Amino acid sequence: MGPVIENYRTEKKVKTEEAEANNNIPASDTASSGFLGNLLVVPMDGSHWVGIKAIAQEMGRRGHRVTVVIPEISMRMGPGKHYDTVTYPVPYDKAHIDSIMSSLKDMMEKSSFTEKIRKGFSKMQKFTGFMHTTAESLLFNVSLISHLAQQNFDAVLTDPVAPTGSLIARKLGIPTINLLRGLPCSLDMKSAGCPSPPSYVPRFLTRYTDKMNAHRRPLLCRLLYWHFDQIAYQFLGEEVGIAEVLSESAIWLLRLDFTLEFPRPIMPNVVLVGGINCNVRHPLPEVRSWVSGEHGFVVFTLGTMLSDLPEETTSVFLEAFRQIPQKVIWRYTGQVPDSFPENVKLMNWVPQNDLLAHPGARAFITHAGSHGLFEGLCHAVPMVMMPFGGDQPDNAVRLASRGAGVVLDIYSITTESLLQGLNEVINDTRYKENMQKLSALHKDRPVDPLDLSVYWTEFVMRHKGAKHLRPAVLDLNWLQYYCLDVIAVLASVVLFFVILIVKCLKLCFWKLSRKRKQD
Amino acid sequence: MGPVIENYRTEKKVKTEEAEANNNIPASDTASSGFLGNLLVVPMDGSHWVGIKAIAQEMGRRGHRVTVVIPEISMRMGPGKHYDTVTYPVPYDKAHIDSIMSSLKDMMEKSSFTEKIRKGFSKMQKFTGFMHTTAESLLFNVSLISHLAQQNFDAVLTDPVAPTGSLIARKLGIPTINLLRGLPCSLDMKSAGCPSPPSYVPRFLTRYTDKMNAHRRPLLCRLLYWHFDQIAYQFLGEEVGIAEVLSESAIWLLRLDFTLEFPRPIMPNVVLVGGINCNVRHPLPEVRSWVSGEHGFVVFTLGTMLSDLPEETTSVFLEAFRQIPQKVIWRYTGQVPDSFPENVKLMNWVPQNDLLAHPGARAFITHAGSHGLFEGLCHAVPMVMMPFGGDQPDNAVRLASRGAGVVLDIYSITTESLLQGLNEVINDTRYKENMQKLSALHKDRPVDPLDLSVYWTEFVMRHKGAKHLRPAVLDLNWLQYYCLDVIAVLASVVLFFVILIVKCLKLCFWKLSRKRKQD
Repeated sequence: MGPVIENYRTEKKVKTEEAEANNNIPASDTASSGFLGNLLVVPMDGSHWVGIKAIAQEMGRRGHRVTVVIPEISMRMGPGKHYDTVTYPVPYDKAHIDSIMSSLKDMMEKSSFTEKIRKGFSKMQKFTGFMHTTAESLLFNVSLISHLAQQNFDAVLTDPVAPTGSLIARKLGIPTINLLRGLPCSLDMKSAGCPSPPSYVPRFLTRYTDKMNAHRRPLLCRLLYWHFDQIAYQFLGEEVGIAEVLSESAIWLLRLDFTLEFPRPIMPNVVLVGGINCNVRHPLPEVRSWVSGEHGFVVFTLGTMLSDLPEETTSVFLEAFRQIPQKVIWRYTGQVPDSFPENVKLMNWVPQNDLLAHPGARAFITHAGSHGLFEGLCHAVPMVMMPFGGDQPDNAVRLASRGAGVVLDIYSITTESLLQGLNEVINDTRYKENMQKLSALHKDRPVDPLDLSVYWTEFVMRHKGAKHLRPAVLDLNWLQYYCLDVIAVLASVVLFFVILIVKCLKLCFWKLSRKRKQD
Repeated sequence: MGPVIENYRTEKKVKTEEAEANNNIPASDTASSGFLGNLLVVPMDGSHWVGIKAIAQEMGRRGHRVTVVIPEISMRMGPGKHYDTVTYPVPYDKAHIDSIMSSLKDMMEKSSFTEKIRKGFSKMQKFTGFMHTTAESLLFNVSLISHLAQQNFDAVLTDPVAPTGSLIARKLGIPTINLLRGLPCSLDMKSAGCPSPPSYVPRFLTRYTDKMNAHRRPLLCRLLYWHFDQIAYQFLGEEVGIAEVLSESAIWLLRLDFTLEFPRPIMPNVVLVGGINCNVRHPLPEVRSWVSGEHGFVVFTLGTMLSDLPEETTSVFLEAFRQIPQKVIWRYTGQVPDSFPENVKLMNWVPQNDLLAHPGARAFITHAGSHGLFEGLCHAVPMVMMPFGGDQPDNAVRLASRGAGVVLDIYSITTESLLQGLNEVINDTRYKENMQKLSALHKDRPVDPLDLSVYWTEFVMRHKGAKHLRPAVLDLNWLQYYCLDVIAVLASVVLFFVILIVKCLKLCFWKLSRKRKQD
């Protein structure tokens, strides 16, 4: 065997000024516990990167050694001030990622129902295929995995929507900390052993969503995790499903908060850190003068995945904005229309959280992604929500049911419906009041969610896991869970005695009747 | 109607030096949130007073107005530096309380099995009768209740083992914070809506206890709460059971910790604060010189309820202590024997927590009450446990199963078994090591349990409850909980169509056969 050729690239913490500027992190008043460890981070791209990056940065800032493993090509992931990076080659280019992202814009184009189904399925296939390819590029990069194995990591911090990090953790025999909003098919709650009585715990990604979503979701779950089961077998060389791998997770950091979520049972190793991304970072030098004005302004972003819209939809929005006194800052990367209202500012990227923190923010037009939702909640800005997939319909209905926002259908939006929605949340003071109450509840917590995430990450590193929090339910099969084994044994015993008694009685009767006959 | 005669006595915060000395509280680094409220505290006597008092003191220290309502006669409850007290008359005297407490000593006397059962039942009756009388003396003290109603309290902090405070809260329409170790019949978990799958969640007070306890516990539950249901009806004038009253609780502060407890699902309004009583308060001036010595010392207390033993048992202990090199500090209020070993010091009261915090503490002989258990756990002192009732057998088995202590039967203890137990935990280093690991896990938490208790108490006062944490399960009956209503509807629909199809088929066959006949 020849020498293993290194098929990855390591990069130390970024020390440039530019990086410093891009990687400002909130100052934390929580000192490090004195323990300094070695953390492996396997993140996911897109908005999923936000929370993981915040924890990685803060862990590094506290003095831990932090190594983030990312693909060479990605949307948002990159080096930082407080962590090292290891990049691995992937068999796709930036254009491919862009094409997956732009497929969302395609979905917006007018088309027939069957065409929409076809497009939706194709988009889902593209998306899951992309996730599988990324995972395989990491897991089957022999030199990289062997490099990681030599680093003596104390724990893996990962986003288990793609369970790549969890598989590496199992291979290396180290504990896992998960950060996530939720998994399809409630795989997170199942793997954590949380009971979810269907009578009062709505299924994640299935209820309160439009019909198309409801029947598409289980499909996504299968498309995504069936192939990961195969990858797990190839990578680990053992017959183990993703669900079982995930059930070994030491701590689940869930980006949820009961201000929005319906109260439900959770297990001791599930920690709620919704609002991890609300710390204000930038002083808004670029837009500060622009946003000032008596009527305030509206923030409009549709997230990482949809910053471009079909021309027709764009003009629906612009026409509505022309008729309101507020200024509008719109994150828009598409073709700039020839003419647009003076009160609208189009930007390739907006400091969404910092804009929402500005006292002039009157409304937030959003797709109701979880990060935006928590940022709006944190800064008490009422919302006009236009969910188009994932957890967004769930998020939107939860906030709307609290009277803190309205939900519009982005696929059938009109200037009138948009105007009405904006008018309601801006001018009906109840929306702002409800939002302020919710926001006060949300921000009233003993520990800041980022500090709490760092705390439990450090906990797992200090104690080599959190075995004392592992519930016995994870070792039971469903027969045992419902005590059917116990019931079966008891029933057999009862049956045995019933039969015995019946036989005895029969015998008695028989003897008795024979005696009578003899008499 | 004549003027209402005041049948209670109010007392302001104690400002004397003596009180200061007796009421030292741990300095907290958590500042008040700026909100200052008005808290009513309805505590329970005995060891139950410890945690409630700590919270009341800390709340007062932070500037809240705190009023503690206590009976004129009690074991331990009294005025403090940071809270006002209101006392109400009760129809018993100190001697009656002492006789209830001493009944535990009687249980230790040698007697026949039937005699023991009789004694046990009589003790239980005395005890529950005492609780009912105390509750009635408060609830039916018209002038006191009307005085409390005028104070505009923001919340009630109470120990729901006697649900007196919960009933007052319902009457006054204010939210409740409960502090407790657990309730008989799992009434706490039921009222909080926590699912407790029997396949992996041991029943509180029923499993891991000796047989006699197991059949006595449901009896205790009935004796205690049936009468409280009647009291509730008389006091509130509405048909409402204690379970329903408790289910309105805003926050449940449970003195549990998953270091000892088996992981189980909990609800969002259940907060674990096990170890609330571990802060070291006194510098041990009295016994400091005495406890020093190369072999260290053993702390021996059997709790509030059992500080006196039958002569026979006392000599069993003294004979064992004579044979060990350690010194022994024993909390003993009984008759002092004529001669006892030089290494033994008998004291009417011992600073248990501070002694355990001393590095010379080698072992802790305890009845495994929850406070002592957490203090020993906190300071990593291995234990010889002799549980005699309540939650003690549960506590003891949990700690023993972690290899941090041994359990002995106090009813059949011998000098040999005690010596063997002490020898094991003191000289087999595994006990100390296991205890240190457990202790490290227990103390590794984001917020100190006392601060956390104060935080959630303040939370409830700030937000007038914690309605967003109330699970919908509390509004479901068992038919709805198990979705039997949904299943019934679905089954009916299915049945309807099956019948319809069968009828149709029958009709078809009938027509067909008639046609054939005609042919």
